[in-house]
Amino acid sequence: MRKRKELRHTYGFDDVALVPGDVTINPEQTDVSLTIGEHKLELPILASAMDGVVDPKFAVALGKMGGLAVLNLDGVQTRYENPDEVLQAISEASPEKVTSIIQQAYEEPVKEKLVGQRIKAIKDGGVVCAASVTPANTKKMAPIAIEAGLDILVVASTVTTARHISKSYRGLIFSELCEQISVPVIVGNCVSYSAAMELMKTGIAGFLVGVGPGAACTTREVLGVGVPQVSATMDCAAARDDYLDETGKYVTLITDGGLRTGGDICKSFASGADGVMMGSPFARTAEGPGRGCHWGMATPDKNLPRGTRIRVGIGVDLDHLLFGPTSMTDGTENLVGALKTCMGVCGARNIKEMHNTEVVVAMSIKTEGKLWQLAGLH
Amino acid sequence: MRKRKELRHTYGFDDVALVPGDVTINPEQTDVSLTIGEHKLELPILASAMDGVVDPKFAVALGKMGGLAVLNLDGVQTRYENPDEVLQAISEASPEKVTSIIQQAYEEPVKEKLVGQRIKAIKDGGVVCAASVTPANTKKMAPIAIEAGLDILVVASTVTTARHISKSYRGLIFSELCEQISVPVIVGNCVSYSAAMELMKTGIAGFLVGVGPGAACTTREVLGVGVPQVSATMDCAAARDDYLDETGKYVTLITDGGLRTGGDICKSFASGADGVMMGSPFARTAEGPGRGCHWGMATPDKNLPRGTRIRVGIGVDLDHLLFGPTSMTDGTENLVGALKTCMGVCGARNIKEMHNTEVVVAMSIKTEGKLWQLAGLH
Amino acid sequence: MRKRKELRHTYGFDDVALVPGDVTINPEQTDVSLTIGEHKLELPILASAMDGVVDPKFAVALGKMGGLAVLNLDGVQTRYENPDEVLQAISEASPEKVTSIIQQAYEEPVKEKLVGQRIKAIKDGGVVCAASVTPANTKKMAPIAIEAGLDILVVASTVTTARHISKSYRGLIFSELCEQISVPVIVGNCVSYSAAMELMKTGIAGFLVGVGPGAACTTREVLGVGVPQVSATMDCAAARDDYLDETGKYVTLITDGGLRTGGDICKSFASGADGVMMGSPFARTAEGPGRGCHWGMATPDKNLPRGTRIRVGIGVDLDHLLFGPTSMTDGTENLVGALKTCMGVCGARNIKEMHNTEVVVAMSIKTEGKLWQLAGLH
Amino acid sequence: MRKRKELRHTYGFDDVALVPGDVTINPEQTDVSLTIGEHKLELPILASAMDGVVDPKFAVALGKMGGLAVLNLDGVQTRYENPDEVLQAISEASPEKVTSIIQQAYEEPVKEKLVGQRIKAIKDGGVVCAASVTPANTKKMAPIAIEAGLDILVVASTVTTARHISKSYRGLIFSELCEQISVPVIVGNCVSYSAAMELMKTGIAGFLVGVGPGAACTTREVLGVGVPQVSATMDCAAARDDYLDETGKYVTLITDGGLRTGGDICKSFASGADGVMMGSPFARTAEGPGRGCHWGMATPDKNLPRGTRIRVGIGVDLDHLLFGPTSMTDGTENLVGALKTCMGVCGARNIKEMHNTEVVVAMSIKTEGKLWQLAGLH
Repeated sequence: MRKRKELRHTYGFDDVALVPGDVTINPEQTDVSLTIGEHKLELPILASAMDGVVDPKFAVALGKMGGLAVLNLDGVQTRYENPDEVLQAISEASPEKVTSIIQQAYEEPVKEKLVGQRIKAIKDGGVVCAASVTPANTKKMAPIAIEAGLDILVVASTVTTARHISKSYRGLIFSELCEQISVPVIVGNCVSYSAAMELMKTGIAGFLVGVGPGAACTTREVLGVGVPQVSATMDCAAARDDYLDETGKYVTLITDGGLRTGGDICKSFASGADGVMMGSPFARTAEGPGRGCHWGMATPDKNLPRGTRIRVGIGVDLDHLLFGPTSMTDGTENLVGALKTCMGVCGARNIKEMHNTEVVVAMSIKTEGKLWQLAGLH
Repeated sequence: MRKRKELRHTYGFDDVALVPGDVTINPEQTDVSLTIGEHKLELPILASAMDGVVDPKFAVALGKMGGLAVLNLDGVQTRYENPDEVLQAISEASPEKVTSIIQQAYEEPVKEKLVGQRIKAIKDGGVVCAASVTPANTKKMAPIAIEAGLDILVVASTVTTARHISKSYRGLIFSELCEQISVPVIVGNCVSYSAAMELMKTGIAGFLVGVGPGAACTTREVLGVGVPQVSATMDCAAARDDYLDETGKYVTLITDGGLRTGGDICKSFASGADGVMMGSPFARTAEGPGRGCHWGMATPDKNLPRGTRIRVGIGVDLDHLLFGPTSMTDGTENLVGALKTCMGVCGARNIKEMHNTEVVVAMSIKTEGKLWQLAGLH
Repeated sequence: MRKRKELRHTYGFDDVALVPGDVTINPEQTDVSLTIGEHKLELPILASAMDGVVDPKFAVALGKMGGLAVLNLDGVQTRYENPDEVLQAISEASPEKVTSIIQQAYEEPVKEKLVGQRIKAIKDGGVVCAASVTPANTKKMAPIAIEAGLDILVVASTVTTARHISKSYRGLIFSELCEQISVPVIVGNCVSYSAAMELMKTGIAGFLVGVGPGAACTTREVLGVGVPQVSATMDCAAARDDYLDETGKYVTLITDGGLRTGGDICKSFASGADGVMMGSPFARTAEGPGRGCHWGMATPDKNLPRGTRIRVGIGVDLDHLLFGPTSMTDGTENLVGALKTCMGVCGARNIKEMHNTEVVVAMSIKTEGKLWQLAGLH
Repeated sequence: MRKRKELRHTYGFDDVALVPGDVTINPEQTDVSLTIGEHKLELPILASAMDGVVDPKFAVALGKMGGLAVLNLDGVQTRYENPDEVLQAISEASPEKVTSIIQQAYEEPVKEKLVGQRIKAIKDGGVVCAASVTPANTKKMAPIAIEAGLDILVVASTVTTARHISKSYRGLIFSELCEQISVPVIVGNCVSYSAAMELMKTGIAGFLVGVGPGAACTTREVLGVGVPQVSATMDCAAARDDYLDETGKYVTLITDGGLRTGGDICKSFASGADGVMMGSPFARTAEGPGRGCHWGMATPDKNLPRGTRIRVGIGVDLDHLLFGPTSMTDGTENLVGALKTCMGVCGARNIKEMHNTEVVVAMSIKTEGKLWQLAGLH
């Protein structure tokens, strides 16, 4: 008889907890900066390239506070001269009709001149400018965006690998892309050691980790695909560290999707992330373009939409979301304060030291929390 | 002191997730065909031999789209000249009375002439015809069905083994059956390596995997018996592969029961299935005979009914269920599109390559999903 | 640093499932009899010594059907000439007051003459008579009961060990008891290998397994004590088998408490039980004395009641509970039919062969079931 | 490829159960006393230094019954001449406003003369007096409190380590503190073997175990930090035992936070605790100052409050909470009776013997309990 396959166990944010360190540090003396290529960001926090989360105005606001917003060059900002109308329509649609309204809205083609306009609007705000394209339209869009002043290029789809097989078109070769263009390239998303390793070998500056974890994403129900974020981050961080040992090059790992609270952010860094990318928390800010709603890149898919519009409401200023002060005790505000306080109790002076924090599986924490939330008791 | 028994852990669809591959493939270039005996089906999807799921009209419709419906030769179609009346009565019964109404409906004896008529109706539609019998009535029914043009014979009960002990009657000997009849035989259900191995040695063409997992089945509550589908499929797939190594014969493994979404289908193939058999999703189609209801083979049992009528409603055309497009983001529609997209991100060109996809245990995914469903938030 | 303790995992009915066998058997050819001392019972099912479950009338009814009811000699039947009044009062009490009403009802002293009367009433019915006493009143009550015709003596408390330490009184010595009296002695409850082994060495005929699992019991919340029934039964069955190997004596293991469905019964036998003892299912019968209510032995405790009155309603005749036929598909009726059908699919001709059935951990089965029950969808 | 990190599993009260012993003991013959420095307490139960739990009157009441209340010297009792007004305001605040009202209330500075007054009030009651300070104000407050008659000094914050790094001020050196002052010092909180070991080496008399487990605490959501109490207690108990082996000194381990029932208390001692500290259960007493409310030390934090006001209601006299009798069957009353009964069934004559009780993981116990609570069925 064949040996029975042992299935590996994987863990998400709600499955784990962090163990305090043997030394504690004054939170004010922790350093949370993040470097991507030559750009040093004060905060290790990125805003997702989702149309309900980032528009040029939001990108400038977040940039001035030390973070980095990624503009979606394949969304409503580059399809519509005046995207506010369509954003309004999506936010007002009934739950039954919203997916088809979103599907329809994204049938309008992308306009090249709008790509340049949006990039310039961000650069004019005096901040680092990042924008995302899909693998399929990278060759066309990337040069236009760089011409307009783009600082960091993000190439992203649900799952992106260094090798793509297709008979109908020639896939994007990342190693060629990285050689040809002048700005750092971030690629995603991936979740495994081997996929991350292959991507790093193409010369990218960073990569996004996360398939199927976000609130606005139903990839795991539709496709069955997805790895919980703590395990995905740990596996990819192992690849990053091995690649550093082999080559001397440090590639930035950004955990992307599924983060809701300060606790989730802290757990990402303890799992090995250099930065985190979030959608829902930013969609809740007064500065966000989504009018309290957001949805994912795969939602408009004509044949097989994954994810739907999530209504999160408008609950906080961006400034208070990041730095407080707050009266909320559920971890949803003062995210930077939470990270620094956590680093204090874990004895980590910077993000790299935070990677050494012990992570334990603590199932009970999760189930209880979820159940109480459900019962409206927490 | 005796060594304490270590209990083996088993997993179902909601316990696991799939890890994307290191290569991605254009979904349009994936091949999802399934071969049973000399019959090649375009789709690896079978409809369960349940009276709320398959009648001759449905069998023709599914066959024309590339799938295979199995007609129940021990159900209302062969007991009643006009089965629509009894199907109507079952669909209209109150929850309290429905089991006794079903018990009563199945006391009407099976008519041999109806067996031939139903088979012919399917063959006249120009599609491959499969039908199911119980082990006890195989000797009587199989010849009539084959005479009428049956292509594939399914012999099924809750649990079927190659060896059955009874003092009152001589059990069905599968090896004799396979030698005597001219069409491929599929037998089920089983869930363990050893039971699958013994069944394959009798010369069958395929077998059904699954005891106690379906929504319309309560075998696990009534008898305590059942193995979650991912583990059952993996164990039986190990038997199939060992049997292939020993004999050079490839026997088709069909995961049967408990599948609801595209994600469940993808997980079945990643666990080693060659095909999947489903009830509930087809019962929801406009083409299904059950008027939005379905129930299992063990429900009519006079003394110990297992399973009950499940009201699933009528929600989708068969065509959209299989191929989309859809606005649903919960995985319940465009099942073939989901499978092909999943194979794309897992880098599998065909079902056999899909068997190599990594499966991980991801408890959190499940509990969260269930809880949100419960709370009506998803 | 000390080695970290590895905590052993334990499992209950809802955590596990049974794997069908490689052989199947006609259910009618299975033997489910149970032997205690020289008494052979047709059914391996005992009714708990709880006042809402067993009175003399019920004991006769169950005995005639092949099972064995245990009368509580420390309860209302021996405290009150006419126990019906107090049973009525308990069944009618409001949830807030019921525990104090029960506490008060049990302050009435036990009358010795009623002990004899109740035993005789059962013997007059022509069935095997079993009755339970607490360790503290065994010396006083046992002779009276035996004098009146008792066949089997049960000595039970929440936790009973062969060694009890007390400065204020001399504990019951089981080895002396077994030597002095003429009837087989069953002792309980215990849950571990070592405690079971020590009890067996005193010469008892059988023992009860189960601490803290029952619906009417809150020992686990009040004291933190309890072992889930599947693990408790497996551990104690290992002790029974070792004791048999060492001494040639086979001591009967009865899993007591926490069983609700046919599936639970089947899982108990697969875990190694020779018999099962149940409260709630019998309390639901028309023949039960509790008027649809039941409560445990520790409920009347004046200072620290554990467990409370559970209202189960009156839902079924004893005959249908045991043998069907039934229209219920949730496993709560036709318990003997379920056991025989399960033994058929597991290929077990008798209870001893049933001990060899494979048990697997199947968490998903449980959570789903519980959640659907909660949601009222099942 | 790097070896994948194996994440350690950790367990909380609801994840585990206790196994009864092979010997049972008369509960009245168990000894539950606790020694801290030269003070011997009849009960191993402390009340948390929370403003809704302990005021001088409550401290005297609990002391007279054998327990030990810890007064918070950094809370409303030392900030306000008449703390009743502010306690009333907090208890009456709406859920939306309560955190900001608490934040505001704690901006009033601590008055040194009130420190002395409160200590004296407790000493005048004739009981052992314990009070807590934060690491930052220890140097200032400790001498005043000791001068006023303090018996035991508690120095506590969310996470306290022997080494604290700060550029802005010189941290508290515990070894210096222990040498300089005349009373035993208890420090907390910690959760790991190594942190506990470092703290013990400074000469402390005892330490508090628990980060993030309490009902009034949301450290795990805000910071992601926390270890379930059973695992935290076991790890720290291993450190205590190793330290005893190395030095001959026995340091008292007090499990602090997250305990609600008698079962939780019993599990703490089985995990290795010498004493337990509780908030919520005492906040529910008629003697508690919180008017049925309580909140944690980190709730008033101006920028990042963790925890919130929990409304527990007033449900029981302190006397009945500790010693019963009770009609409650959910483990929330007669806590000392539950502990003694549990020690009886576990065969432990004193707390030290209770450390040897076997603890098993029993997930089902927890989920069921939680789900039934949710459903309002328990």
